[in-house]
Amino acid sequence: MSEATAEPRYAARASRMRASEIREYLKLIDQPGLISFAGGIPDPALFPAAAFAETYARVLADPARSRSALQYSVSEGYLPLRQWIAARMLSDRTIACTADNVVITSGSQQALDFIGKLLISTGDTALVTAPTYLGALMAFNAYEPRYDTLPLDATNRTPAAYADAADRAGGTVKLAYAVPDFANPTGATMSAAARVKLLELADALDCAVVEDTAYTELRFSGEAVPSLASLEIARKGSIEASRVIHCGTFSKVMAPALRIGWIVAAKPIVRRFVLVKQAADLHSGTLDQMVMHEVADATFDTQIAKVRASYGARRDAMLAALARHMPKGVRWSQPDGGMFVWASLPEGQDAAALVQRAVSEARVAYVPGRAFFTDGTGANTFRLSFTLPTPPEIEDGIARLARVFATV
Amino acid sequence: MSEATAEPRYAARASRMRASEIREYLKLIDQPGLISFAGGIPDPALFPAAAFAETYARVLADPARSRSALQYSVSEGYLPLRQWIAARMLSDRTIACTADNVVITSGSQQALDFIGKLLISTGDTALVTAPTYLGALMAFNAYEPRYDTLPLDATNRTPAAYADAADRAGGTVKLAYAVPDFANPTGATMSAAARVKLLELADALDCAVVEDTAYTELRFSGEAVPSLASLEIARKGSIEASRVIHCGTFSKVMAPALRIGWIVAAKPIVRRFVLVKQAADLHSGTLDQMVMHEVADATFDTQIAKVRASYGARRDAMLAALARHMPKGVRWSQPDGGMFVWASLPEGQDAAALVQRAVSEARVAYVPGRAFFTDGTGANTFRLSFTLPTPPEIEDGIARLARVFATV
Repeated sequence: MSEATAEPRYAARASRMRASEIREYLKLIDQPGLISFAGGIPDPALFPAAAFAETYARVLADPARSRSALQYSVSEGYLPLRQWIAARMLSDRTIACTADNVVITSGSQQALDFIGKLLISTGDTALVTAPTYLGALMAFNAYEPRYDTLPLDATNRTPAAYADAADRAGGTVKLAYAVPDFANPTGATMSAAARVKLLELADALDCAVVEDTAYTELRFSGEAVPSLASLEIARKGSIEASRVIHCGTFSKVMAPALRIGWIVAAKPIVRRFVLVKQAADLHSGTLDQMVMHEVADATFDTQIAKVRASYGARRDAMLAALARHMPKGVRWSQPDGGMFVWASLPEGQDAAALVQRAVSEARVAYVPGRAFFTDGTGANTFRLSFTLPTPPEIEDGIARLARVFATV
Repeated sequence: MSEATAEPRYAARASRMRASEIREYLKLIDQPGLISFAGGIPDPALFPAAAFAETYARVLADPARSRSALQYSVSEGYLPLRQWIAARMLSDRTIACTADNVVITSGSQQALDFIGKLLISTGDTALVTAPTYLGALMAFNAYEPRYDTLPLDATNRTPAAYADAADRAGGTVKLAYAVPDFANPTGATMSAAARVKLLELADALDCAVVEDTAYTELRFSGEAVPSLASLEIARKGSIEASRVIHCGTFSKVMAPALRIGWIVAAKPIVRRFVLVKQAADLHSGTLDQMVMHEVADATFDTQIAKVRASYGARRDAMLAALARHMPKGVRWSQPDGGMFVWASLPEGQDAAALVQRAVSEARVAYVPGRAFFTDGTGANTFRLSFTLPTPPEIEDGIARLARVFATV
């Protein structure tokens, strides 16, 4: 018997794949008596559960459909679903496209992995906001990029400054990643002017723009801002001349468990993603795609209204409770939608150290903000999700959290 | 309006991602009047459709289960499913393991992608048989390996010869990939002696052994051969000292559309794969995993018996028809299981050129073999799948194909 270790020699990229510390906070969600603002997951009470149950039953009750639903299918995704998405992209987001511009992914997380796989060589630069969505960093990290910071509004850095820094790191700027509506973790929305500036920067750098619209439907107040894809199509004349890779998901409005998201882009780019999809997992679940198509077609608008009303009331409850209870020096954002309020303690305080006290003394959880930064800053920041607790729980939890912060 | 191309500058690996020519042949399956031996997909008439319908309905009818089934879940996979797989690995394959040794993947195709991602740096060597499963090449290609040829039985190359060739190519041998039972495309099964030799080679090279068991349950005749994982555990004393990464799937025995496969390996390796899974798509479908667990628990043994009887009869029909009709000089394998007969035309003939005549004149399709080789050889070889046509269709189709070959 050998005592040799069983572990193979991993590729260099394996050292970039680390467990998200957020996972530890998410585990707190199910602790009895604990009020968790740590999640970032939808309220399951809002899922159209009856429609899903009825549709799975109906598709599987038809022998011909059942056979297709349980069989292998094409890598680009179920055609009626891609057609439905193309129509909604036009009606909801002014993105003129056809089913040939759409590829189905297993949630938008898979879209981010595929984007890294297709675009990033070791040492290439990815522009991301600070803070940014941790799942994007996890996906891109496997392809060993260098990160540089994308400002959300005016920038005093020229395109040449970005390009030079990328060149010195041994690569080029390959993509700029943004969550323009109600970003995770900040809840911030980019202005139309900032979006156009981002597209101009991408033109100057000849890089792709990755638009992650995970929260776009969750607007509770304010006016919708045109998508980066629609602005780019207006500038270039057609989606076929667009450099935007637009990613969407059913996870927040419908349900996440079916793992259905999509990429909308110019056809040659979509054809590349179809090859990536085929190599990665052949295709997304056939039955799940068929069911999601029918349930979305029947309930998508109702679902949007339902999640907006529910999450909007909880955002209001959270903003009111923060204003009522938080001690001086704690600051927070005023999101127009999404799932998160972004907050900060006075400079010098450590949100990661305090979360331990918050959990043990106040039985309240949140996510410390540092994990969302690529540069090690953000120690005093934290993220509060308002989508799972009820308004009375939010009021109670924020009051309890404020008492911890008041005694630092 | 710009006329600039919309395509971004892809990573170097993108040039390795090409459309499989096999896809063109698979499209022929649904042509009316055409008898296709081109597939490699299960017969949907054998899916346990009623059990799936009943189980989706039952899980979604329970409000508490429905909420979990439609919600985000953990990256390693649904615990009861992983426990069920661990128990079957012990009972069916003599692989002593626990749920902590199991990670759920979206089909075994995703396992192959993850293995490439975790192990292969550009220029590293992957050992594969010639011919080999095309999907493995597609998955690994994204990580830019060099390929070297793994002989299935005795080899006259020393470990040092493999290592030296890998070193000259600028990397090391990172893995040896094998489909030991009824391989795609050859239908060949490795002897126990050849398996032990492969494990010894891997020890000498300090590389991982990837065991793809996609067809293992489909044995129609002959004695089962111990899995590479079980032989390695016997050699090393525990799965924790094993260098085998064992991949399985429900696609061939149950149904492919739910996209559920698994990796079984030492715990530290599994923990790495969980990180890869989280970054790649967060997790596989929650509802699909819950349903597959219950349907597999209720029907797996019945399903094995059913697919063995059905595909075994079709293999017999194909071997009988080949013997009855094929002209001299055409040779074929005698598989003990799986989905394929591997055949060859006389040296110098081109199976890819002849498939056009087979389709247009005889209305019969097969897959030319060249795509399954990494070295450009195999022009006279071809693959025949027997899992979709009925025995009378097989008899008719092989007779028609033989008439085309007889007039070359």
